Amino acid sequence: MRLAHQKDKTVSLFDPQAVPTAGSYLWNAHTLLQVNCQGYANAQFLQPEPAKYASGPSLEATTFMQPEQPIFEHSPGRFVYVKDARDGGLFSLPFAPSKQTFEHFEFQCANDAIYWHITHRGLRLSWQVSLHAELAVEVWTLTISALDTAKQIDIYPYFPFGYRSWMNQSADFDSDLNGIICRSVTPYQKTADYFKQKEFKDLSFLLADQPPISWDARQQAFEGNGGLRAPQGVMQPQLSQSSAHYELPTAALHYQLSLTPGGEKTFRFAFGPANNRAEIEAIRATVFRQTPKLAKPNWYADQTLQMQSNDPQLDAFVNFWLPRQIAYHGDLNRLTTDPQTRNYLQDAMGLCYLAPAKARQMLLTTLGQQYADGALPDGVLLHANASLKYINQVPHTDHAVWLPIALQAYLQCSNDTDVFDLNLPFADSSETASVFTHCERALSHLLAARDHRQLSLIGQGDWCDPMNMVGYQGKGVSAWLTFATIYALQTWLQICARLGRTNQRAFWQQAIDDMTTAANTHFWHGDWFGRGITDAGRLFGIDGDEEGAIFLNPQTWALLSQCVNEEQQTSMLAAVTHHLETPYGVELVTPAFTQMHEDIGRVTQKFPGTAENGSVYNHAAAFYIYALYTIGEADHAYRLIRKMIPSLDEPDLTQRGQLPNFIPNYYRGASRQFPRTAGRSSLLFNTGTVHWLYRSLVEGLLGILVTANGVRFAPQPPSTLRHMQACKHIAGVQLDITIERTSSATCQQTYVDGVRLPQNELSQLTVGKQYSVQIQLPATTQP
Amino acid sequence: MRLAHQKDKTVSLFDPQAVPTAGSYLWNAHTLLQVNCQGYANAQFLQPEPAKYASGPSLEATTFMQPEQPIFEHSPGRFVYVKDARDGGLFSLPFAPSKQTFEHFEFQCANDAIYWHITHRGLRLSWQVSLHAELAVEVWTLTISALDTAKQIDIYPYFPFGYRSWMNQSADFDSDLNGIICRSVTPYQKTADYFKQKEFKDLSFLLADQPPISWDARQQAFEGNGGLRAPQGVMQPQLSQSSAHYELPTAALHYQLSLTPGGEKTFRFAFGPANNRAEIEAIRATVFRQTPKLAKPNWYADQTLQMQSNDPQLDAFVNFWLPRQIAYHGDLNRLTTDPQTRNYLQDAMGLCYLAPAKARQMLLTTLGQQYADGALPDGVLLHANASLKYINQVPHTDHAVWLPIALQAYLQCSNDTDVFDLNLPFADSSETASVFTHCERALSHLLAARDHRQLSLIGQGDWCDPMNMVGYQGKGVSAWLTFATIYALQTWLQICARLGRTNQRAFWQQAIDDMTTAANTHFWHGDWFGRGITDAGRLFGIDGDEEGAIFLNPQTWALLSQCVNEEQQTSMLAAVTHHLETPYGVELVTPAFTQMHEDIGRVTQKFPGTAENGSVYNHAAAFYIYALYTIGEADHAYRLIRKMIPSLDEPDLTQRGQLPNFIPNYYRGASRQFPRTAGRSSLLFNTGTVHWLYRSLVEGLLGILVTANGVRFAPQPPSTLRHMQACKHIAGVQLDITIERTSSATCQQTYVDGVRLPQNELSQLTVGKQYSVQIQLPATTQP
Repeated sequence: MRLAHQKDKTVSLFDPQAVPTAGSYLWNAHTLLQVNCQGYANAQFLQPEPAKYASGPSLEATTFMQPEQPIFEHSPGRFVYVKDARDGGLFSLPFAPSKQTFEHFEFQCANDAIYWHITHRGLRLSWQVSLHAELAVEVWTLTISALDTAKQIDIYPYFPFGYRSWMNQSADFDSDLNGIICRSVTPYQKTADYFKQKEFKDLSFLLADQPPISWDARQQAFEGNGGLRAPQGVMQPQLSQSSAHYELPTAALHYQLSLTPGGEKTFRFAFGPANNRAEIEAIRATVFRQTPKLAKPNWYADQTLQMQSNDPQLDAFVNFWLPRQIAYHGDLNRLTTDPQTRNYLQDAMGLCYLAPAKARQMLLTTLGQQYADGALPDGVLLHANASLKYINQVPHTDHAVWLPIALQAYLQCSNDTDVFDLNLPFADSSETASVFTHCERALSHLLAARDHRQLSLIGQGDWCDPMNMVGYQGKGVSAWLTFATIYALQTWLQICARLGRTNQRAFWQQAIDDMTTAANTHFWHGDWFGRGITDAGRLFGIDGDEEGAIFLNPQTWALLSQCVNEEQQTSMLAAVTHHLETPYGVELVTPAFTQMHEDIGRVTQKFPGTAENGSVYNHAAAFYIYALYTIGEADHAYRLIRKMIPSLDEPDLTQRGQLPNFIPNYYRGASRQFPRTAGRSSLLFNTGTVHWLYRSLVEGLLGILVTANGVRFAPQPPSTLRHMQACKHIAGVQLDITIERTSSATCQQTYVDGVRLPQNELSQLTVGKQYSVQIQLPATTQP
Repeated sequence: MRLAHQKDKTVSLFDPQAVPTAGSYLWNAHTLLQVNCQGYANAQFLQPEPAKYASGPSLEATTFMQPEQPIFEHSPGRFVYVKDARDGGLFSLPFAPSKQTFEHFEFQCANDAIYWHITHRGLRLSWQVSLHAELAVEVWTLTISALDTAKQIDIYPYFPFGYRSWMNQSADFDSDLNGIICRSVTPYQKTADYFKQKEFKDLSFLLADQPPISWDARQQAFEGNGGLRAPQGVMQPQLSQSSAHYELPTAALHYQLSLTPGGEKTFRFAFGPANNRAEIEAIRATVFRQTPKLAKPNWYADQTLQMQSNDPQLDAFVNFWLPRQIAYHGDLNRLTTDPQTRNYLQDAMGLCYLAPAKARQMLLTTLGQQYADGALPDGVLLHANASLKYINQVPHTDHAVWLPIALQAYLQCSNDTDVFDLNLPFADSSETASVFTHCERALSHLLAARDHRQLSLIGQGDWCDPMNMVGYQGKGVSAWLTFATIYALQTWLQICARLGRTNQRAFWQQAIDDMTTAANTHFWHGDWFGRGITDAGRLFGIDGDEEGAIFLNPQTWALLSQCVNEEQQTSMLAAVTHHLETPYGVELVTPAFTQMHEDIGRVTQKFPGTAENGSVYNHAAAFYIYALYTIGEADHAYRLIRKMIPSLDEPDLTQRGQLPNFIPNYYRGASRQFPRTAGRSSLLFNTGTVHWLYRSLVEGLLGILVTANGVRFAPQPPSTLRHMQACKHIAGVQLDITIERTSSATCQQTYVDGVRLPQNELSQLTVGKQYSVQIQLPATTQP
C-alpha cells in the first residue's frame, strides 16, 4: 500500500505507525497548534509570552522550542474513544491512546485544517481540527457513519489538560456552558508578578455542541487502573462525573448513539484557554454557529511563486507548503516576543517575496531598536513588556550582516528606494537618522569589531550561537564572519549604486579588499577554509582536525563574497561534496564533535549529528544552495534542493519521520558516525532556511533578478529539465514565465510578447502590468 | 485482609492499589530517594544544588519540592519485568508498570531499606533498595525463588532514565562496566555556566553484578508499540541491544534463569549519577562486594525519646519514625543550599533533642550571616556558591522570632550557657559581637518593624509566606507576628534570667506590655483574634468574613504569649474546635479562600484546602498542640497528636494516602467545602512540624522541663492513660521515667530512686548520670 500521497494542496499519510512523528501545524495571529498523526498535540498561544492550555502530566519546564521532543502515552493530545456497545470492542481516534490497527487510516494535512479519515469495525469516522480565525480556540469536528449494519456505540472525546499548576488546579463540568472548565493559577511568588499575570488566560475548556450523558474532569477517575489504552471510565456504563480538586484535571465526555446503516452523526467541540467564565460564554456563542470563523491564513497567496516543472513533488512544495511556512514566520515571529535579530531580519527577507510591506515594517522595527553607536540589539522586542530571553542574553557578533542582505531583497521585490530616506530613532538616544545612516552605522560597527589582521572577532558567537568559546577571551576570530562581513559590504555597495549614493564607495571597497586578502592569508588551509582562529591562535576546521575538520559555512560565504580563485573554488566544492554531502543534504561540519573542545565551545557538547554539531542544518544548506546559484552550479544546487524536501516514498519518509509539508531546522547528520539516525527530522519548523530557499528559487532556479532598470532573466534549471512554467509577482508586476530547452538555441534567448530582450533584460517595468516571458535555453547533453 | 501493619521498626502495606501513593524515603549525606509502593521513584542529590539522575520523559521544570505530584505510567521508577518462559505470562515488580494483581504483596519500610515481598505464579520474589553510605548510589537486590515447581523465567530490570537534556543525551551498554551508561549535558547557554557545570554528575548508570544476555538502552526500542504494560522488547526472545543517540535513554537488562523447586537466585544492581566513566568504575569496584557500605543514618538513635504507653501505634511513631524525620532535616536541610532562615532555626530546634552539638552549629551559622543592623537574612547559605532562590527572594518579617525559641530549646537540652559569650561576625561588617548581642540586635530589629500602634508590620509576609498583600504597601500588620514577637521577647527574658543578664529586662518588658495591650485592642473581635489589619485598615480573619473567617495561628500564639484572659481563652478554644478541627487535625483557616482577595494575597489563590489556604497545615497544628500543653489542655493536645499521625487502619489510611512513617506538611483541609479529599496527605516530609511535635512530647506529654537548677517534671498524659514509661537523654543526663495514675495520689508526686522530689524538681544534675524517675498522678474520672 502507498504510505503517503499529495494532491489538491494537501498531503496524506496512510499509516500511523510507519511515521509516528509525522504531523502538521495550524496557526492564527497568536496561536500555534502542532498535531501529530497519532493525535498527540502541542498548542501554544501568546499572552504575550507563549503559554499552554494543555500540557503533560508533570511539572514541565518553560523553554524555547526544542527538537525531537519525545512523545509518551500521557503526552497531551485530542482523542476520542469509540466503544461498540454490542461487544465492548474499543478503539480510539485518531490512533493513540488505544493504538488499534485500523482497516483504513488517512492523516491529511491542509492549509487550514488537519483531518483523519478512518474506517474501522463497520464505521466511517472523520476527525478534524481548525483554529478559530481570531481566538485561541481549536474547533474539532467528529463525523461518524455506519457502513452496512446498524451500530450502537459509545463515544468519549478525551482532551487531557495535564498538570496545570502547583498553586491551584481544578476542573468541573459546567452544564450551562456544556463543557468541562479547568481552572488554574499560573504559579508565581513575587507580588509584582500578580499584577503581570492577572490577565493570563488560566482557564482551559472543552465545550461540546450537544450535552453528554456522563463526563469526567478528573484524570485518575477516568483512567483508573486501566491506563490510557483501556481507561476504567470507558470500560464502565457511565463516566464517574467526578470533578478534580487540586488533582490532575482532564476533560472526558460520553455520548451514546444508534446509527442505522448509512446513518451519520456529527459532533463539534471547542478547546482552548480563557481568562474567565464570561469569555468562555462568548466563545460558546460564536463557535458552534453553522459556519464559525476559522483561520485560513492566505493573505500571501496571490504573491506566491507558482511553478509547473517535471517534478510535481517539488512543485507542490514550492507552490504551497514553502510560502505557507514563510508566512507562518511572518505571522508568529517564531512564537516569541524577542526574536533574535538575525532571525527577524531573515524572516523579513523571506517576506519580501510574499508581502513587501510587511517586510518593510519588520526592517524599520529592527532599525528603530538600533543603538546610536551602530550596534543592533541581540533580539527585537515586539511587545512593550518583552525582554531578552534565553540565547538573546548572550551577545552575538553577526546581526549587522543580515541588514543589507534583507534590504537588498526588499529593494528587489519592491523597488522602494524611498525607504532609505525615512528617519528613525535609536534605542538609546534622542537622535534620529535616516535608514541609510542607520545602515552605515551598523556596518561601521561591524567593521570596528576586527582584530589587527582585519579579521572579524567572533566574541561569544557569530551565526553559530553555541560556538561561544573560540573568542570569549577577546582574541578569537571567525572565518565565516569575515566572509559574511565582506559579502554584507558588497551587498551594501550594490544598494548604494542603485541609490546613486556612492561617496563612501572607496572606504567600503578598501575594507573589502583588506579583508579578502587577510581571509585568504589566515584561513585558507589545504583544500578549504578553516572555521576560525581561537583565542590561543589555533586555526580550526581544517584537514587533520580529528573532529570538526571541515565546516560548511566558511566555504559557502567565501563563494558568496567571491573571495576565491578558480582553483580554490574547485577544491572547496569537491571537499564539501566529499565530506559533507549526505542523502539528506549537506552537513554543517564533519566529523561531528564527540566531546567538549574548550577552545570551540558549547557546540561541541551537543549530541553529534544534531543541531549545529554536524546535522544537515538546513539554514546553512540553504545558504550553500544560494551560493551555488551565484556561481552557476545549477545541477548541484537543484540536487541539494531536492534533498532538502522530504519524499513521499519509503524509506526516505520513514527515515526522516516527517511529511513534505515543511522544512525542519535540521535533519540528523553525522551520517558516518551514526548512520541509523541520519536524516531524521528535528520536527522544528522555525528556520531561516525557507527564506533562503525561496530566494534561491526566485533568483537562482528561475533567475528573476530585479535591477535598477527592470528585470534580468537568468534561469538556471537543472539539466534534467526540458520545460517549465512559472508565475511570480515581483516589484509590482506579474511575470508569467515559460522556460524551455531547445536544440535551436545556442545561448539563452528571452522574449516578452514575442519580442526578444537585449541582454535578457526587461527594462522600464510598468507597475501593475502582466508580462509573458518566454525563455529558450540551449539543450544539454544530459538527459 | 489487613491493609497494613507495623513491627520491629518497620511499617508494611499489603495492597499496592488501596494506597497507591504510600511510600517511604531513604537518604545519605547528599542523596534523597523517595519510592512509592508501586515502584515509582524520585531521587535527588546535591551537587550542591539538587539534581536528578533519572526523570520523567518530558522536559521537567526545576523547582522546589511540590505536594501531591501526579504519578503517571511513564513516571520514573525502578522496575523488574518477570516473564514465565513457558506460557509468556508477564508481571512486573514491584507492581507498576504491568499492574497485575499478586497473590501476596508486602511493601515494607525500614530505616535503611525499602522492601517488597511478593508471591506470584509459583515464585517468591523480594525486591529491595538501600542507599550507599557515602555515594549517590542506589543498591537494589532481587531475590527469586521457585516454590513447588521448577521454573524457567526471563527477568528484565527496567530503570528508565527519562528525558535528560536537550543538548545531549545518549545511552549504551558498556560490557566492561557491565551496565548501561547514560551520558548527557545539563543544558546551559552562558559561557560562565560551563565552568560551573563542568563537575556535574551528568552520567547516569545502571550496573549489574552479572552479565545480561541482552539489553536495551533506547526507550522506544524497548517499549515499542506495546506500551509499558507489555513492552515490545519483553515480548520478544531478546532485547534489541539498541543504544540511544539523542533519543529517550533507558536501561533494560535481560536475564534468563531456571529454578528448581525451592531454588533461589539473587541479583544485585546499582543505579546513580557520576561525572565520568572512571567514577563508575570505582563505584563498580565497591558496590558489588559481599557487604557494600550502606547508609544507615542512626547517629541520633541513642538520644531519642523511647516511650511505652497504652498506644503502640503512637509509641512506634514517636520512638522511631519521628526522630528519623527530624534527623533527615538535620542531614539534608530540606535538600536546599539556602534553607529559609525560619525553617533552619526550627530544624535546629528539633535537633537540640537529638544532637545538641549539631543544633549549636546551625544556630551559629545563622547568626554568622546576620546583618549588622540586626536583620536576619531570608535564607541561610550553606555553600560558597549558594544563593537565595524561590521564596527566599521575597522578604519576610518573622525570622528573628525563631531565634530565642530555638536558643531556649538548645539551652534546655545542653545547659550550654557559654555559647552566648561566643564572638561571631556579621555578613556586612568587619565587626564581631557575642551571640548575646547578636540576639539583642535581632530582637531590636524585630521590634523596630512596628507601626504607630505597636503592632508588627507584616510587609510581604510573615510565617505565612503567601500572605503577601496584607501589608505590601507598608501599612498592614499581622496579629500572629505581634503575638509571636511578644512570645519571642518573653522567651528571651527567660534566657536572660537564666544567664543572670537582666539589665535590659525593663526595656523588653515594656515592649511586651505595650504590644499585649495593643494586640488586644486592635485584633480581638467577637470570640477570637483576627489575623491582621490590611494596608487599607481592614481587620480580617473575623466572624462575618465570608472566607478566611478564623485563622489558627493568632489564637495559638496569643495562648503561648499569655495575652488572653480566661474568658478569651475559653471562647478561642471553643471556636478553634468548632470551626477548625477535623478528623485529620486542625485546619489553618476556614472557610478556605475560593478566590483572590487582593488585600490578603497569594494565599487566597491556592486551591482551597491545600497548603496555607485552609489545609490541616501540620506545622501550625503542632504550634497549637504545644500551646495547649502550656495551658494544661492535656487531653485536647493528645487528641490532636493522634490525629496528626496516619493510622494503620482503613479508611483513615486510604483517605490520607500515606503510611505512618512520616508526618506530611499538610493534610487536605477545607473539609466542609471538599469532603472527598479532606485528609489527603501532601506527601511532603519537609516540615517544621516534627520539631514542635517532639518538643510537645518531651515538654508537654512527658513534662520534662530543664531549668537553671535541674529538671522539673510536669507530665500531662491524657486522662485515658494509666501507665507509661519513657527514657530520654537530656542536658547530659539519662532520665528513665515511669508515669502512673494511682488513686492514692491527690497531686503529682515525683520520686527519684525512691526519694520524693520537692516541687517535683530534680536539682543539681550530675552530667553522665542515669536517673530513675517515678511519677504518680491522681487517677482521673475518665476511663
